[in-house]
Amino acid sequence: MKNLPSRVRVVEVGPRDGLQNEPCPVSVETKVTLIEALVDAGVQAVECGSFVSAKRIPQMADTAAVFQRLRRKPDVSYTALVPNLRGLEAAVACGVEEIAVFASASESFSQSNIQCSISESLRRLGEVTERATAVQIRVRGYVSCVLGCPFQGEIAPSAVASVAKELLAMGCYEISLGDTIGVGTALKTRAMLEQVAQGAPMERLAVHFHDTWGQALANVLIALQAGIATVDASVAGLGGCPYAPGATGNLATEDLVYLLNGMDIETGIDLEKLAAAGRAISHALGREPVSRAAAAIAAKGAL
Amino acid sequence: MKNLPSRVRVVEVGPRDGLQNEPCPVSVETKVTLIEALVDAGVQAVECGSFVSAKRIPQMADTAAVFQRLRRKPDVSYTALVPNLRGLEAAVACGVEEIAVFASASESFSQSNIQCSISESLRRLGEVTERATAVQIRVRGYVSCVLGCPFQGEIAPSAVASVAKELLAMGCYEISLGDTIGVGTALKTRAMLEQVAQGAPMERLAVHFHDTWGQALANVLIALQAGIATVDASVAGLGGCPYAPGATGNLATEDLVYLLNGMDIETGIDLEKLAAAGRAISHALGREPVSRAAAAIAAKGAL
Repeated sequence: MKNLPSRVRVVEVGPRDGLQNEPCPVSVETKVTLIEALVDAGVQAVECGSFVSAKRIPQMADTAAVFQRLRRKPDVSYTALVPNLRGLEAAVACGVEEIAVFASASESFSQSNIQCSISESLRRLGEVTERATAVQIRVRGYVSCVLGCPFQGEIAPSAVASVAKELLAMGCYEISLGDTIGVGTALKTRAMLEQVAQGAPMERLAVHFHDTWGQALANVLIALQAGIATVDASVAGLGGCPYAPGATGNLATEDLVYLLNGMDIETGIDLEKLAAAGRAISHALGREPVSRAAAAIAAKGAL
Repeated sequence: MKNLPSRVRVVEVGPRDGLQNEPCPVSVETKVTLIEALVDAGVQAVECGSFVSAKRIPQMADTAAVFQRLRRKPDVSYTALVPNLRGLEAAVACGVEEIAVFASASESFSQSNIQCSISESLRRLGEVTERATAVQIRVRGYVSCVLGCPFQGEIAPSAVASVAKELLAMGCYEISLGDTIGVGTALKTRAMLEQVAQGAPMERLAVHFHDTWGQALANVLIALQAGIATVDASVAGLGGCPYAPGATGNLATEDLVYLLNGMDIETGIDLEKLAAAGRAISHALGREPVSRAAAAIAAKGAL
């Protein structure tokens, strides 16, 4: 077993990846409160929204307003997802300093999600990344469906490696590898990471697991053993699973931080404050947090 | 990393450890139906009930009737928990062929749970194990609080090792190490197992995790890496957490089997049939299964 990292960078995706999949809309003020509470809890990277079609994803239509209202702290990354040049211009107009772009390792997911092939999507993202880099905006790349696709099933690790390599080559500083439907298990995760790492430095890779089948934290553990030190998660498990209504979605940040605390791996995050932020946004959504650790904290508080 | 096991023995504890902590009582017929459905799904070891004080644990008062009604299959272990000689006699009277006994690694948990010291409890269990062995009944030993105690907090791995060693010495064929309150994380799990294995062969150890803080499956993974090949779990996450009402309890068998299937580790268990058994007992209890994998299977079925 390789040495585990002494510190893990947690990328909080709840305000974007989470809220864009929540049926109940929340106000700009609630989003800003959430993001500021997360940063106050010690989170140093937050995906705050996305500049996408308001018609397709109405939950994100107010991203510009969120960025305008947000009191940004230095040393914290406030990211916005951007699908194209138009999105990039909107992000630039709000003073966004870091964007995320996304491609898929699955041809059928790419067609279904953004109506074009993987190679066409990479061509477009090349333009976005080039322009962003020219104006000193950092770019993070996502690869979706890295351990399975809702339409075509199994995904070859070589397909993931190829997309990740191209995103790095066009200038992304980091690639987040997403198990979009949460089907991956430990050994498949390790095999995928090993293949991707053949063409990309491990320190520029991140993992993004969904807990749909209960595997997210076991997959995080094997990823840490493989040398990964950046992990995405969504406070209170925000987001659910758009491909299997009723199933669990994103890995809850609370469960991740509890694991890392227990392993003496530094995150800079205060778990109690994080859980409080999760409870507040969950109540705004009219539901309970989807996080084992959050439930345990709430039960402890109730004793 | 050591070689992972090619096969894992799953010990299903839902009908005992699970149902004894469920507030809603279920009939003998419902219990028998559950146990037979689990065996039909391929489970080869089921803890079916306990011969304890009906006053203290009314949910288990009908264990004799359960054993009398059960159509037992060869090659399947149907276990009953037994706290003392009186319980053993009751088990013998029903033709029980395997019993489980329990001790704690925590002095204060032992006092609170069974009102005696660890050493006094081990003395009593010595009598039970001797008598059981004399009448060809196999004995499995539990150690509770192996990674923490609800009353005294941290538990030294040496305390766990000492109790496990004594239980083995008195004739238990296997020791199941239980994280009763689900507080353990991966590295602490590994450290505890390594210490226990200094005085006990790894192949005679099993793990029993609770998912209270979301860590159960990550802990299973690290236990498999350490050489463990027997894992306890509770279908549909039956049982909840008696020490933190509202929090999650036992690791759900569905989530465990999904992990093992994904790692090509044989269990002999059919996940769909297992999940159906979990749905049936959950509905008898008037609630949904507490299992990510069960929710994903249900969502898939609903599409």
